Amino acid sequence: MKFQQSEFRLQTSRRSEFVDITSKVREKISESGVSQGLCLVYSPHTSSGMTINQGVEPDVTPEIVEQLNKCFPWEDQYHHHEGNCACHVKTTIIGTSEKVIIKDGKILLGDCERIFFSEFNGPRPRVVFLEIIGE
Amino acid sequence: MKFQQSEFRLQTSRRSEFVDITSKVREKISESGVSQGLCLVYSPHTSSGMTINQGVEPDVTPEIVEQLNKCFPWEDQYHHHEGNCACHVKTTIIGTSEKVIIKDGKILLGDCERIFFSEFNGPRPRVVFLEIIGE
Amino acid sequence: MKFQQSEFRLQTSRRSEFVDITSKVREKISESGVSQGLCLVYSPHTSSGMTINQGVEPDVTPEIVEQLNKCFPWEDQYHHHEGNCACHVKTTIIGTSEKVIIKDGKILLGDCERIFFSEFNGPRPRVVFLEIIGE
Repeated sequence: MKFQQSEFRLQTSRRSEFVDITSKVREKISESGVSQGLCLVYSPHTSSGMTINQGVEPDVTPEIVEQLNKCFPWEDQYHHHEGNCACHVKTTIIGTSEKVIIKDGKILLGDCERIFFSEFNGPRPRVVFLEIIGE
Repeated sequence: MKFQQSEFRLQTSRRSEFVDITSKVREKISESGVSQGLCLVYSPHTSSGMTINQGVEPDVTPEIVEQLNKCFPWEDQYHHHEGNCACHVKTTIIGTSEKVIIKDGKILLGDCERIFFSEFNGPRPRVVFLEIIGE
Repeated sequence: MKFQQSEFRLQTSRRSEFVDITSKVREKISESGVSQGLCLVYSPHTSSGMTINQGVEPDVTPEIVEQLNKCFPWEDQYHHHEGNCACHVKTTIIGTSEKVIIKDGKILLGDCERIFFSEFNGPRPRVVFLEIIGE
């Protein structure tokens, strides 16, 4: 029975974008030696989140970003002094973490699913925390 | 201390609907023999998610679906070649999994809470993965 | 290896508001004696949720609430007999739980992150369930 914490860094390149971090998460799970359990993938930022969605067709996640921006436009009337509340709203809606099942040392994802770091206030250097629980 | 993975299948019957899967999750938890712990209920699809909400009054979840459709209409202008990006946006907003507490062998839900598989691109055959951790 | 369940009560004071419960969650984790692991923070209600967001600048969460209300207005046309479906939609979008990593007996949050109980149908007495897993 193991509890293993790790982290990795990434650099986003746009104000809003979804960055596929699946291979990095796979690498960390592989390093942990856990073959069965759970992994929490956590963004410790208030203007970025985590989501799992279509990662095989490249036009899906940009379209999700576009739809979120349409619903919560950056240029809306915000009182918050930094004027960037749209990024916080989107973070709350998406959520700061995702949980995946580990089976036979691998992430149990659907065929088209990938894990995405969701940047809403970039470009910025970011960090991802992982908590792997299993045996 | 146990880690137990299981799954079950379901068939959705509409393009968008919330299907109450609470009794099925209860059955799987009961089979696992875990009396105290956590259960992750996971949808491995990119156009369906998981949510916990009102399951006692039958008109609540259809209304949630209607509100989501109003916010992210199926017929909107999407570039994605399949033209069905609304289902992916809603999946990202709802999330692909829910976590429930297991206490005395039962799910610790509020009185009116039920677990719903959230179909956004049906009708389709679907699968639900469970990871039960506990003792 | 411990599984520890606990709960605490709170009273919300508005129809919609985010209440910072971080110190209460910290207290419960401290009481559990767990130094490394996970904590699930769960709202067992169908008209309130849980989110992690900016807790240092006081104008951010009221603005998130305002944006959510703009997107899903209380006064919209709902069929649900209680006429309060907006609170259920927001609960489904926000989610009923948050998961945090416990490291060295403390919650591994980003510098500006705080855990918020998200009231969408107050003021009401509410309860929060916690499941702490770790060692």
